[in-house]
Amino acid sequence: MIKIIVDAFGGDNSPMANIEGSIKALNKIEDLSIILTGDETIIKKELAKYTYDANRISIVHAPDVITCDDKPTEAIKHKKESSLVKALDLLKENDEIGGLVSVSSTGAVLTGAVLKIGRIPGVKRPALCPILPTIKGGLVGICDSGANAECDSLYLHQFAIMGNLYLQKAYNIENPRVALLNIGTEEEKGDSIHKEAYQLIKANQAINFVGNMESRDLLTGAYDLVVCDGFSGNVLLKSTEGACLELLGLIKKTFTKNLKTKIGALILKKDVYKIKDLMDYNNYGGAVLLGTKKTIVKGHGNSKAEAFYQCIKQAYNMEKSQLCQAIADEIAKITSENQNN
Amino acid sequence: MIKIIVDAFGGDNSPMANIEGSIKALNKIEDLSIILTGDETIIKKELAKYTYDANRISIVHAPDVITCDDKPTEAIKHKKESSLVKALDLLKENDEIGGLVSVSSTGAVLTGAVLKIGRIPGVKRPALCPILPTIKGGLVGICDSGANAECDSLYLHQFAIMGNLYLQKAYNIENPRVALLNIGTEEEKGDSIHKEAYQLIKANQAINFVGNMESRDLLTGAYDLVVCDGFSGNVLLKSTEGACLELLGLIKKTFTKNLKTKIGALILKKDVYKIKDLMDYNNYGGAVLLGTKKTIVKGHGNSKAEAFYQCIKQAYNMEKSQLCQAIADEIAKITSENQNN
Repeated sequence: MIKIIVDAFGGDNSPMANIEGSIKALNKIEDLSIILTGDETIIKKELAKYTYDANRISIVHAPDVITCDDKPTEAIKHKKESSLVKALDLLKENDEIGGLVSVSSTGAVLTGAVLKIGRIPGVKRPALCPILPTIKGGLVGICDSGANAECDSLYLHQFAIMGNLYLQKAYNIENPRVALLNIGTEEEKGDSIHKEAYQLIKANQAINFVGNMESRDLLTGAYDLVVCDGFSGNVLLKSTEGACLELLGLIKKTFTKNLKTKIGALILKKDVYKIKDLMDYNNYGGAVLLGTKKTIVKGHGNSKAEAFYQCIKQAYNMEKSQLCQAIADEIAKITSENQNN
Repeated sequence: MIKIIVDAFGGDNSPMANIEGSIKALNKIEDLSIILTGDETIIKKELAKYTYDANRISIVHAPDVITCDDKPTEAIKHKKESSLVKALDLLKENDEIGGLVSVSSTGAVLTGAVLKIGRIPGVKRPALCPILPTIKGGLVGICDSGANAECDSLYLHQFAIMGNLYLQKAYNIENPRVALLNIGTEEEKGDSIHKEAYQLIKANQAINFVGNMESRDLLTGAYDLVVCDGFSGNVLLKSTEGACLELLGLIKKTFTKNLKTKIGALILKKDVYKIKDLMDYNNYGGAVLLGTKKTIVKGHGNSKAEAFYQCIKQAYNMEKSQLCQAIADEIAKITSENQNN
């Protein structure tokens, strides 16, 4: 049995989406059990709407909620009765709990993860790794997408190691094509940090490094993992999401412009909706945090039930494949190799 | 009369597009004269296709061409008979020539501009500033989009000054809304360079600074100028272009999927083409280089005639509004203020 703890509050659609997603996961995955943290009365009321195996779900009462207005460090330290802090404490104290899913503010989840759960020995910085759809119907991971605004080349090498293992373990991609985000594809491109990182990743025999990539090729399906510093990774993720959203919005506006376009839209609706679905992050779960001692998945703040279900599935897959242990082993190996050289 | 020199070679569609665009500019702008550099025989043959005022066009023979395979610094130093180097030499030596338009490789144009033309006194680093369309039908500039992979906060402040003047002078935007690209909108976001840059730009009374912006909002029309380091600016530009291209490609594929979708597409074609047009950089010219002693516009390598015309119009507007002088004055003012403090 894989035990995942779900922060039932936080997020725009909480606790409804959080709980609906949890029930879906419970009904789809047989060897999963879930602990929900949050206001017990409200959670019980929500749960009453569904049919599920009650033996595999439990509630831990936490009356408080961390909001986006809370300062992360203060909230983690002082809001001890919040659904997120309770969840983190439980995760820390109980070996049998594998992972945590939360859609609370990124800052609070990151701070809490580092302060309460801690880094895997040897890991310099945990990194956020969201998964995006490509136009070929595949997926691409971005590591780091914003946890570390300032990076050195060693961090980038570790992001490559962790992201590579994540795609192998949680997505069964045998030999992920790993690229380094840069301002050109040539080996000598970029600042000194990226030049050094290029050489470090290239020298790592466990990684199928395909070289530098330009941000314009993110969605082409040519790469499985993009390694980047958290600043440019954040720019990459948000500009891609933003451009897709704006363009789809423009198309929607065109479709409803007049009677003629409405007729055309009616004919095309189903097919264009497929594109919208393809680009909808709700179908791809959240950003996982790589490098902490336990599995942590941070979903979008406006996650709906489907996104929540996907996040839980991600956490389940990470736990089932013992990703944290694999990262610990690989980082230890690299660290000892470097010490011997 | 504004005299612009056009590198008639370099680029995927040269010299045809370069020359067709030049003729269009000549026929549209009365007080413009153009010097074309490149193989005289080929240029003359192309020119014979068009009707134009022959008094306002001249050719300077340059038989060689710089390609993307050439190393920028070596090409600028050794390919003295190339259309780009000849153009740069002419620009440098003749006070009456106002600016240069080239679609040769970015590296060669940048290197040539710095080595041959030089920086405006006080300017730390020239920056590339392309203009993108927004979904509201307006424009947004990105400064720097890739000339400087490594930046400090002073560079970023200067990019804000130069980009602000560019939008005022060449696009008649009275009070451009200037934002700093960051990983969140809050004042304290980002690395130390961005935090420092935030304070420098905020303190500059000549700039309408609206704070940090996230890359997802680039196309919303909320900003006139995005200030960024060349690394993340390059990621921003290319991921936005890439996402739009991939999504439009997906829509095109959907439209031709089967008879039903083809009928729908037929009805919507005109309206969707409008979106495609809106997002087509060919309609918005090239990236201008800000901070060099003379006007330099670098167009996309695959510019068509329309893009070329837009680039020449940009160079003309910059020259006509005496942008280089305005930048020189403002940088001198800021430098002396800093020395007095």
